[in-house]
Amino acid sequence: METSLLIPFEEIRNILKEILLKQGFINEHADSIATIFTESNRDGYPSHGINRFPLFIRGIRRGYIKTDQVAVPLQTFGALERWDGQLGAGMLNARICMQKAVSLASGYGIGCVALRNTNHWMRGGTYGWQAVDANFGAICWTNTTPNMPPWGGRKAHTGNNPLVIAIHGPDDIPLVLDMSLSQYSYGKLDTYKRAGERLPFPGGLDEQGNMLYDPANILRTGQLLPIGLWKGSALSLILDLMAALLSSGQTSLHIGRQSHEYGLSQVFIAFDLPRLISDEVRNQLIHEVVEYYKASGTDVRFPGEQTLARREKAMREGIAVDPGYWEEILQLSGR
Amino acid sequence: METSLLIPFEEIRNILKEILLKQGFINEHADSIATIFTESNRDGYPSHGINRFPLFIRGIRRGYIKTDQVAVPLQTFGALERWDGQLGAGMLNARICMQKAVSLASGYGIGCVALRNTNHWMRGGTYGWQAVDANFGAICWTNTTPNMPPWGGRKAHTGNNPLVIAIHGPDDIPLVLDMSLSQYSYGKLDTYKRAGERLPFPGGLDEQGNMLYDPANILRTGQLLPIGLWKGSALSLILDLMAALLSSGQTSLHIGRQSHEYGLSQVFIAFDLPRLISDEVRNQLIHEVVEYYKASGTDVRFPGEQTLARREKAMREGIAVDPGYWEEILQLSGR
Repeated sequence: METSLLIPFEEIRNILKEILLKQGFINEHADSIATIFTESNRDGYPSHGINRFPLFIRGIRRGYIKTDQVAVPLQTFGALERWDGQLGAGMLNARICMQKAVSLASGYGIGCVALRNTNHWMRGGTYGWQAVDANFGAICWTNTTPNMPPWGGRKAHTGNNPLVIAIHGPDDIPLVLDMSLSQYSYGKLDTYKRAGERLPFPGGLDEQGNMLYDPANILRTGQLLPIGLWKGSALSLILDLMAALLSSGQTSLHIGRQSHEYGLSQVFIAFDLPRLISDEVRNQLIHEVVEYYKASGTDVRFPGEQTLARREKAMREGIAVDPGYWEEILQLSGR
Repeated sequence: METSLLIPFEEIRNILKEILLKQGFINEHADSIATIFTESNRDGYPSHGINRFPLFIRGIRRGYIKTDQVAVPLQTFGALERWDGQLGAGMLNARICMQKAVSLASGYGIGCVALRNTNHWMRGGTYGWQAVDANFGAICWTNTTPNMPPWGGRKAHTGNNPLVIAIHGPDDIPLVLDMSLSQYSYGKLDTYKRAGERLPFPGGLDEQGNMLYDPANILRTGQLLPIGLWKGSALSLILDLMAALLSSGQTSLHIGRQSHEYGLSQVFIAFDLPRLISDEVRNQLIHEVVEYYKASGTDVRFPGEQTLARREKAMREGIAVDPGYWEEILQLSGR
């Protein structure tokens, strides 16, 4: 594997923004999207950062990501609103809808936006951090194209539907859980495969239903394990349906019938934590509970801990970028 | 193992109700609690039904389940309310709070009740079915005493915090997911152990971090696997904290400091599905998606499918009851 380049945050963001402006995004939107992609690399998620940027640009060229559209409100039911993403950029739509959920929660204690007809939100954690930055708590999830076999099944007839839960904690403990419902993502399996490594824990099944540790073999069978086996499988079905019913949008089934992954359904729920509990009590409680959690062993981390460490390192040393993808981005920019 | 007795629903319910009346519950509450315990056995969850009834009675005698208290509202924030369970019976409190969440959702599209100071709700699915019976969708969860080691840890410093998600579907597809965050419950491990069987999938770790299939060995180490390993571990921490922050209640850490498991925190969220989508569109969508899900293999079940089958069988043939626990219940009733 080639050594990563280390590039300053602003340099990456500026190049991405240039490309996005050329694609037709207005300045504000190009800025937001470039920032989100750069932040994903900074926080250690290149598979949903730079590495995916060329695919995002192809989505625009193929016409299923609209540079001149963003989510608009369709219906209000009080503390719950239904929005239509109009096939705008998934990151813009998700940010708008989380912001709206936060604003609804400011009025009602809890707020919810169900979004249909949107695109891949890239890294789900982005919207968890958004809620944390607003001092709120949040739950959000998205459906995906069918990419995981239901438990007991052989064909990928459900999505790995990432789920994000975030709690605004003290500065040193921002709690952001960002997980897809397969034990390992395709990206992770590919990383292990390229490194010639065996998975530390089972990640898939063979044709006879035996647990597999070999990433190449899992990629061959396509039998990715849902988290918790039958449990994560059921969770994926019910999150997909809940998102589609609340938003009146597409399920994974519909998305899978298309030539590409677009027209997704998502749900954003926010809780007005500052109004519910004082900062002092909240911070003390989180400190105490996380300390206890970590005291159960020598190698225990809270959700968000590694992200925070990687972020601090990247801001000191520069952001690690895969040279191949960076070359592709430089070509897109015409530099 | 002794053969189960088969007893009609009404007979079980009447005996439980008699005992509850003697413990001091008013008629309406004794009736609700007896019904919930009996329904859990009917639906195939005896570990949170009859088998746990004697423990429930001991909780009353020990004074941490109050027969003369139920949940009362503390604060309202609009679509979100905070309630205090006053250490009343967990099932009564949970039913009251899910009902209130449904009523809030009728007004606001989404409704949420955060409940503190309550007791074990027994089978979480009960409140999912309650939402389904009201034609609603729901998400609810509870924290527990610390009973699962965080990922990377050795000591049980987090709870297996059951999570329930339910969607009112067509009559033949009631979608109710009811899952704890450990791959296997203690009850399930014990059942496999007594039957002298190996687990079909890994359920725990040994001292060296190897995956264990032997239930006796897992019960010895106490190293139960979280669903999705590091993912379910993070989920348990964040659900515990969210419940405690929203309700201003206890976390698993606090609960674990007590001599018994009481004073739990729970969250009930409801969605007004009928107002969001027509019954016809909803039923068609669910039929189509569940059919696709099941078509991925020959042994695929939707969440709630087995419950429904067991329920129908039990109503035809009588409810299976463990003779040992039944004997204990007959003694409690003084018959």
